[in-house]
Amino acid sequence: MSTSKSLSVTRRPIEYADASARVRAVYDDIMQTRKTDWVNNFWKVLAHDPATLERMWANVKQVMAPDGALDPLTKEMLYLAVSASNSCRYCIASHGAAATAKGMTPQQYSELLAIVGLANETNRLVNALDVEVDERFR
Amino acid sequence: MSTSKSLSVTRRPIEYADASARVRAVYDDIMQTRKTDWVNNFWKVLAHDPATLERMWANVKQVMAPDGALDPLTKEMLYLAVSASNSCRYCIASHGAAATAKGMTPQQYSELLAIVGLANETNRLVNALDVEVDERFR
Amino acid sequence: MSTSKSLSVTRRPIEYADASARVRAVYDDIMQTRKTDWVNNFWKVLAHDPATLERMWANVKQVMAPDGALDPLTKEMLYLAVSASNSCRYCIASHGAAATAKGMTPQQYSELLAIVGLANETNRLVNALDVEVDERFR
Amino acid sequence: MSTSKSLSVTRRPIEYADASARVRAVYDDIMQTRKTDWVNNFWKVLAHDPATLERMWANVKQVMAPDGALDPLTKEMLYLAVSASNSCRYCIASHGAAATAKGMTPQQYSELLAIVGLANETNRLVNALDVEVDERFR
Amino acid sequence: MSTSKSLSVTRRPIEYADASARVRAVYDDIMQTRKTDWVNNFWKVLAHDPATLERMWANVKQVMAPDGALDPLTKEMLYLAVSASNSCRYCIASHGAAATAKGMTPQQYSELLAIVGLANETNRLVNALDVEVDERFR
Amino acid sequence: MSTSKSLSVTRRPIEYADASARVRAVYDDIMQTRKTDWVNNFWKVLAHDPATLERMWANVKQVMAPDGALDPLTKEMLYLAVSASNSCRYCIASHGAAATAKGMTPQQYSELLAIVGLANETNRLVNALDVEVDERFR
Repeated sequence: MSTSKSLSVTRRPIEYADASARVRAVYDDIMQTRKTDWVNNFWKVLAHDPATLERMWANVKQVMAPDGALDPLTKEMLYLAVSASNSCRYCIASHGAAATAKGMTPQQYSELLAIVGLANETNRLVNALDVEVDERFR
Repeated sequence: MSTSKSLSVTRRPIEYADASARVRAVYDDIMQTRKTDWVNNFWKVLAHDPATLERMWANVKQVMAPDGALDPLTKEMLYLAVSASNSCRYCIASHGAAATAKGMTPQQYSELLAIVGLANETNRLVNALDVEVDERFR
Repeated sequence: MSTSKSLSVTRRPIEYADASARVRAVYDDIMQTRKTDWVNNFWKVLAHDPATLERMWANVKQVMAPDGALDPLTKEMLYLAVSASNSCRYCIASHGAAATAKGMTPQQYSELLAIVGLANETNRLVNALDVEVDERFR
Repeated sequence: MSTSKSLSVTRRPIEYADASARVRAVYDDIMQTRKTDWVNNFWKVLAHDPATLERMWANVKQVMAPDGALDPLTKEMLYLAVSASNSCRYCIASHGAAATAKGMTPQQYSELLAIVGLANETNRLVNALDVEVDERFR
Repeated sequence: MSTSKSLSVTRRPIEYADASARVRAVYDDIMQTRKTDWVNNFWKVLAHDPATLERMWANVKQVMAPDGALDPLTKEMLYLAVSASNSCRYCIASHGAAATAKGMTPQQYSELLAIVGLANETNRLVNALDVEVDERFR
Repeated sequence: MSTSKSLSVTRRPIEYADASARVRAVYDDIMQTRKTDWVNNFWKVLAHDPATLERMWANVKQVMAPDGALDPLTKEMLYLAVSASNSCRYCIASHGAAATAKGMTPQQYSELLAIVGLANETNRLVNALDVEVDERFR
């Protein structure tokens, strides 16, 4: 009885073989867009809710599209920096792999992490000290 | 009596004319390093604690140095993205100005914000769903 | 010169009269969907980036749709609770107004806030104490 | 020597059989109030500090009381939403189980998560863009 | 019409003269406990919900009691540090004043802020790098 | 192929025997300053980026120096409180051990945690209710 109570909050990845046609359509688009032959766990867990799976993939596909004003590597590093700042371990792993695949070097990742750390320090100092925005920045 | 109680937590910017030699040395280095003729409020408020002023400037100067593996614009955009994610209004203003001065376009800023927003959404979903890191990401 | 530097990060609301056809189409859909004759500032500021305006509105429209498994008032209160937990003043004002319009009473809002506060307390205690998930919850 | 240093920060659950009379009184009230025959780990870990155990239980008992303006299921879902937003894994498991026991369906949980994710996105965008509160919301 | 919609979320301080007997009893206890002749705005705003006012004051009174294992100044500085880390401007002002009244010097406050900033930096680095807890710390 | 992609984001501790002279110099200073014969994992993981290792150690050494206005135990407890508030498990373990070594008792740690929890509750309530800073606190 007690196990059934938590079934709705714990969700295992849904593999392609077990997925509905609606879910497979998203998996197919993910693999085609990324030119790869596999789908990572985030999408397989979201697949329990096909509407959210479709919506989130549409968002990621649009926001991370390669034809924007920012190049794909910069986009991945921005995503990675926010994920590191938010302590999302899975997101660091997945976007770290994506950034690396797009050319991020270990040295660049070190610098990215240093910026994330320092920004978290100065952000807190600035907010705690309630620093007034300079006239020149307005 | 009551006003004196809060004097230690509220700190006004210390202008160059009123600064000690120790503080002026940092202000001078900031202006020289940035090739500008003014110092923004963050440093002027930190100046109440010269040791922290020196330390923080040494950190920012090193981490944001232009000779790293990441180019200066990318560094500023990473700093800006973390600051936006952390809702630090002053930091968005100051690093937004710095990124713009280094060439960030309004369209690039829009894309940066979109990534910050989306990362905050997927970071929460991933952590809430406790998604297991894929074998391929390890 | 300095003012132009910050133009890209500070964005004023774009009124209907000044909006492009693409932006007006979103404004029109917002007003029609919400059965109201005005658009709030969030959308008018997002309008500087029509792609994000369209995308965010499509997300909000889908997620907050009235025909879901959760009733509209519960949805608004959940949105409000997260916004209160994240200290988003504007979001509290806008979703507070929406929840009130859908029937939330002052007493219900008080209880909602009490839950938000208490959850933030116990969430920190649990994470700090690294409490192991009970077998019955797995 | 070194292990003793961390004894004060790492705390194992205290089982009923090993608990003091003061702690047992709280455990008894938890079980009676919840009409159940067990106590989950959060309380058993808090039990190392009986004053905090008593205080936190008194808070939870009052805030989550079934006779409020909000019904018990809505209260649990609000608690769950904040816990998901704060990435408190244990809290998601425990309040997810409680909400499920009170009737939350998997589909409702999916919608709850979608709202948590989206609110985190728009909260960041709103704060980053420093959107002014509309006159109508004041 | 529209103004009434936001009445439930915006709450003005309730002055002693306008307060119910139930609320006045809390105000009286706050002033007596703190040996002062006024009540700060936090409590006056909470007063719209007397149950929460009573509960929160009971919590603060117990947790911040002067007879604990930690001395009152250390307690206030811990509260202040967390508030600074969470960017709660009002809380920094109120607990900063309380800490100053209990003897915190400007130099001590500077050191406190430096620790808050640095902890936010290393906390992010540690979580991003997923550092394993040393055997000696377990 | 895929494993190499994540090499840049996953970093194992670098032991003294495998460290460069530059890294060893920092390890030596850590051990000498702390009067101990080992280095904890945080530094060993940072060692992949010697510049950040040197910089972070210089910061920690300065901020946590024993000759400040705050005594070493208070400093450690402030660091611990912020780490607990930020849910940094490793940091709680390491700074908890350091605070314990400097004399923090289990009862003091319990009170510290209670303050961290309560501050997170009132911080959210204050920000959500947008409480105006009292004249006396300005």
